[in-house]
Amino acid sequence: MAFVLRAKRFDLSTGGQPFVVVIRNEDGKNFGIHAGDRLVLQVDGKKVIVQADLTHRRVKQGEIGLFREVWRENKIQNLQAVEISPFARPVSIEAIKKSLLGKKLRQADFDSIVQDIVNNRFGTTELTYFVASSFVREYSNQELYYLTKAIAVHGDQVRFNKKIVADKHSVGGLAGNRTTMIVVPIIASIGVCIPKTSSRAITSPSGTSDTMEVLAPVAFSVEQIRKIVKKNSSCLVWGGGLQLAPADDRIIKVSRPLSLEPYSKMIVSIMAKKVAMGITHLVIDMPYGHSTKIPDLASAKRLAVRFRYLGKRFNIKIKVAMIEALEPIGQGIGPALEARDVLRVLQQKEYRPKDLEEKALKLAGMLIELIGMARKGTGSSVARDQLVSGRAWKAMQGIIKSQGGEPNLDSEDVTLGAKRFRVVAKHSGKIIKINNQAIDELARSLGAPDDKVGGLHLKKRLNEKVISGEVLYTCYASNTSRLSLAAAALKHIQVYTISRK
Amino acid sequence: MAFVLRAKRFDLSTGGQPFVVVIRNEDGKNFGIHAGDRLVLQVDGKKVIVQADLTHRRVKQGEIGLFREVWRENKIQNLQAVEISPFARPVSIEAIKKSLLGKKLRQADFDSIVQDIVNNRFGTTELTYFVASSFVREYSNQELYYLTKAIAVHGDQVRFNKKIVADKHSVGGLAGNRTTMIVVPIIASIGVCIPKTSSRAITSPSGTSDTMEVLAPVAFSVEQIRKIVKKNSSCLVWGGGLQLAPADDRIIKVSRPLSLEPYSKMIVSIMAKKVAMGITHLVIDMPYGHSTKIPDLASAKRLAVRFRYLGKRFNIKIKVAMIEALEPIGQGIGPALEARDVLRVLQQKEYRPKDLEEKALKLAGMLIELIGMARKGTGSSVARDQLVSGRAWKAMQGIIKSQGGEPNLDSEDVTLGAKRFRVVAKHSGKIIKINNQAIDELARSLGAPDDKVGGLHLKKRLNEKVISGEVLYTCYASNTSRLSLAAAALKHIQVYTISRK
Repeated sequence: MAFVLRAKRFDLSTGGQPFVVVIRNEDGKNFGIHAGDRLVLQVDGKKVIVQADLTHRRVKQGEIGLFREVWRENKIQNLQAVEISPFARPVSIEAIKKSLLGKKLRQADFDSIVQDIVNNRFGTTELTYFVASSFVREYSNQELYYLTKAIAVHGDQVRFNKKIVADKHSVGGLAGNRTTMIVVPIIASIGVCIPKTSSRAITSPSGTSDTMEVLAPVAFSVEQIRKIVKKNSSCLVWGGGLQLAPADDRIIKVSRPLSLEPYSKMIVSIMAKKVAMGITHLVIDMPYGHSTKIPDLASAKRLAVRFRYLGKRFNIKIKVAMIEALEPIGQGIGPALEARDVLRVLQQKEYRPKDLEEKALKLAGMLIELIGMARKGTGSSVARDQLVSGRAWKAMQGIIKSQGGEPNLDSEDVTLGAKRFRVVAKHSGKIIKINNQAIDELARSLGAPDDKVGGLHLKKRLNEKVISGEVLYTCYASNTSRLSLAAAALKHIQVYTISRK
Repeated sequence: MAFVLRAKRFDLSTGGQPFVVVIRNEDGKNFGIHAGDRLVLQVDGKKVIVQADLTHRRVKQGEIGLFREVWRENKIQNLQAVEISPFARPVSIEAIKKSLLGKKLRQADFDSIVQDIVNNRFGTTELTYFVASSFVREYSNQELYYLTKAIAVHGDQVRFNKKIVADKHSVGGLAGNRTTMIVVPIIASIGVCIPKTSSRAITSPSGTSDTMEVLAPVAFSVEQIRKIVKKNSSCLVWGGGLQLAPADDRIIKVSRPLSLEPYSKMIVSIMAKKVAMGITHLVIDMPYGHSTKIPDLASAKRLAVRFRYLGKRFNIKIKVAMIEALEPIGQGIGPALEARDVLRVLQQKEYRPKDLEEKALKLAGMLIELIGMARKGTGSSVARDQLVSGRAWKAMQGIIKSQGGEPNLDSEDVTLGAKRFRVVAKHSGKIIKINNQAIDELARSLGAPDDKVGGLHLKKRLNEKVISGEVLYTCYASNTSRLSLAAAALKHIQVYTISRK
C-alpha cells in the first residue's frame, strides 16, 4: 500500500538521523501509521527511510510535514506530491543476528549491512545492534578486511592517476599536534601527490579542518578537490563534505554513548577512508600515553600490527610512528591559535614552536623514506631542507590560494580573540603535569572550535621551572561572556600542576 | 552550566521516546548545543532527559519548543521557565559494558540499569546496547532473577492484603484464545482474588484489553483498581495505564526490529509484572506448535523449567499448561467478535464456541487445584459448575458494572461491523490447514483492533469436510473502504487450505 501526500516544509532539524516527517493524526489512523513508525518516502524515483511524528494541527489531512534534512537533501518543494509506503525489514538484519550470536561474517554479510547503513534502511536500533555485535568479540583479521572493504567501496572513490598517493594520519587524542598542516606542504613541495582530507573537531577544541579553515575554505566537491590537487599535488580539505566511507560516520555516532571505542573500529574507520582515497603510502602518527587514546606502548604495538595487516591486504605501504605523548604539541589550542603556530613554523619565525616543528619533520621524514625518496635515516633532513628553504611555505601558499584563501597572511596577522586574560603561577616550583582534558574543556568554554578566535596559548612546558606570578597561559575569546564561562570552568579544572618545592 | 528558557508547546509527537525539544539555532550556538544532543530539562524539581532539534524560525531566541509528550507528561505551560543543562553519561553504562563483554551481572548492576531506563536516562542507543548484551549469551538463572526483581520493583507495587492472589497468563501467539475473560469470572465467583491486568494488541488483531473494552472501560488508576477488586474479588483492566514494570515496555520496543525475542526476555517480562502485582498462584497457558511463539513441546518444557525456577525464588506457585495449538480457539477474531464469543460462553448460549469453553474450563480447573480448592483432577468440574450455574456470568456482570459498562448486554446485542461479506469454499474437500498469520493480517485490514467492530467469524474447524460454495468465514467492517482493503489482502493470503480430494 502506498499513499500520496502533499509536502509541507518544516523549519525543524534533528541534525541528521532520524529523518522525520509529520503526519496528521487522522491520516495516521487511516493509513495505520503510529508515531515513531518508520516509512519509505518516495519522490522523483528516490527512496528515503523516514520516521513519523504525529500532529493534531500542524499539518492538514493529506499533507506531510518534512523536517529540514528531508526537504533539503531531496530538494522537495512545498505542495509537491510525495509517496509514503510501509517500511519492510532490511535484509541485513539476518547478518546482524548472526554476528550477535557469535558467528563469523563473510564479505557478502558486511556488504549487505553497509549497504543498508548507507541507504538509511537502518534505524538507530538496528545500527546499535550491529555495533554491539562488534563489541562482544574481536573481529578476526579477515573480518576486519571485509568490513573495511565494504565501508570503503560503498561511497565515493577518488582516484588521482598517480603511482604514489601519500598520506599522513594522526589517530588523535592529543591537544595541539597540528603537524598535518606542516607535513602536507613539505611532501607537496617535493612534487609528491598528497590529497589530505581531515575531519572537524568532535570532542576536541579543533580538528585539522577547523584550523585550516582559518586560512582558507575547506569544503569542496570531489571534482573541485581533483582540480586543487592537480595544481598543487595537494590539498587540505574537509573529508566530511564528501561521501567518503559514509557508513563510518553513522557507526561512530552510535559508538559514542558507550565511549568504548574498540581499536578494531578505529582501524576500520581510518583505513576505509584511505582505501576510498586511493592512498598508496601512509604514515600513521600514533601518540601513546595515559592521557591519549592509546594508553601504552604495548597497545600501540598491537594496533600497529593490525594496521600493517590491512595495509598489505589493500596494497598500502604503512609506517607507524609510536611516540610517547606527555604534553601538548605546539603552543596554541583552538583554530586561530593553532593556525598561527603552523604559520610560524612554515614562515620560520624565530619564536615558532620547536616541538611542533620537530615532530612534523620527523613524520615528513618517515613518509619521504617510505616513498623511497630518501635513504633510511635521511628523510628528516630532506624534510628540513624543504622547510628551511621556504619551499614548504610556497607549497602551502599554492594550496591556500587554490582553496580561495589569502596566501600572503603573516603568522602575526592571524585574528585572535580580542578579550583576553592571563593565568599566572600561584607559587614557584616545577611543572609536573599538564592536563590534556582540562585544556580541551577550557578551550571549548572559550568558544573553540565554532568560534575560531577562542582558545589558549600555552607559555610553559613540562618540567619547566616557574616563579610565582609568572604567566602560564593566555586565554582568548571574542566576548566577555565567554571569558566568564572560562573563569567558571577554571574553578574546577587545572591546566598546569606545579610542584611545591 | 544551566540555561533558563521559556516553554512553547508544540503540537508534534514522536509517540514516546525520544522526548524532543526545539531550540533556536543561535541559542544552540551560544550554549554549545548541537542538533541531536541529549539534554536535561528541569521543571518543578523534576528532571527529564530530552533530545534537541534545532530551528531557524519556529521558536525565538530564549524560547524552547516542547513536543507534546514533554509538555503533557510534565504539565508545562506556555511561557513557563524551564532549565536546560548538559546531559551526563548515565552511570549504568559501565554495567552494560560489562555485560557486553560477557561478564555476569549482579543485582546492583541490574538495579542501576533498570533505574536509568525508568528515569529516561537512556537513549535508544544505550538501551539497545543493553538488550544486545542479553542476546549474545543466555542469562544464568540467577541473573534472570536479578533482572526480574529489578524490573518489578522499579515501578508500581500493587498489594491486595489477601493470602491468595491468583492469576492466569497466556504467552500469546494464537488467534482468538480469549479464555482470560472466562477464567477470571469463574475464579472470582468462588471468592478468590484475581486482579487481572492485560495488554492491548501490538501485532495481533486484539488483546484481552481490546476485547474487554467492548464490554466496559479498562483504563484505571491503581487506586480505582483496588476498589474494583475489593468489590468483585477481581477486575479485567489494562495494565499499560499503570506503572507496572515500566522498564519492560521500553525493552520490548527495542527488541522488536530484530524480531529475535529470546525466551529469557519473555519470562522476565511476564514474571516482573506478576511480582509487581503481588501474585501468589499463577497458571501459564503456553500453546505450542509451528504457528505460535513456541515451536515444539521440547521448547515449551525448557521454558516451563525457567518459569518454575523464578516462581520458587519469588514465592509464586506456578502451573504451566502446555497444549499443542494447530488452529484458533473460538470463532471470533477482532474485539467485538471475540467479546461475543466470550458472552456466549458465559451466558451459556447453545451456539457458544465449545473449544473456547473447554480450554477455559481446563485452565480455570488447573488454577482451582493450584489454589487448593479442589482435589487433583476435579478442578475442571468445579469450574464447570460455576459456569453452568450462572455464577461465573454473575461475577462477570459485577466486574463489568464496577468498570462502568452495561452489565446486562446479551451476546447477540454486541455491535458488529455493518458491512460484511462471506468467503465460501471454492471446491469441496477437507480443511487441512488454518493459517494463523493470514487470520491476523485479514482481521487487521478489516480494522481490528482500533476499529472494534472489524474482524472475522470463523465457521469451520480443522479437519472438517466442506462442500463447494459453503461459507468458510464472514468478514465484518464498519465501512466499504475497509472491506475493499480486506478484498485486496485476500488476493495474496489464504485463511483455509482445503484438500482437493
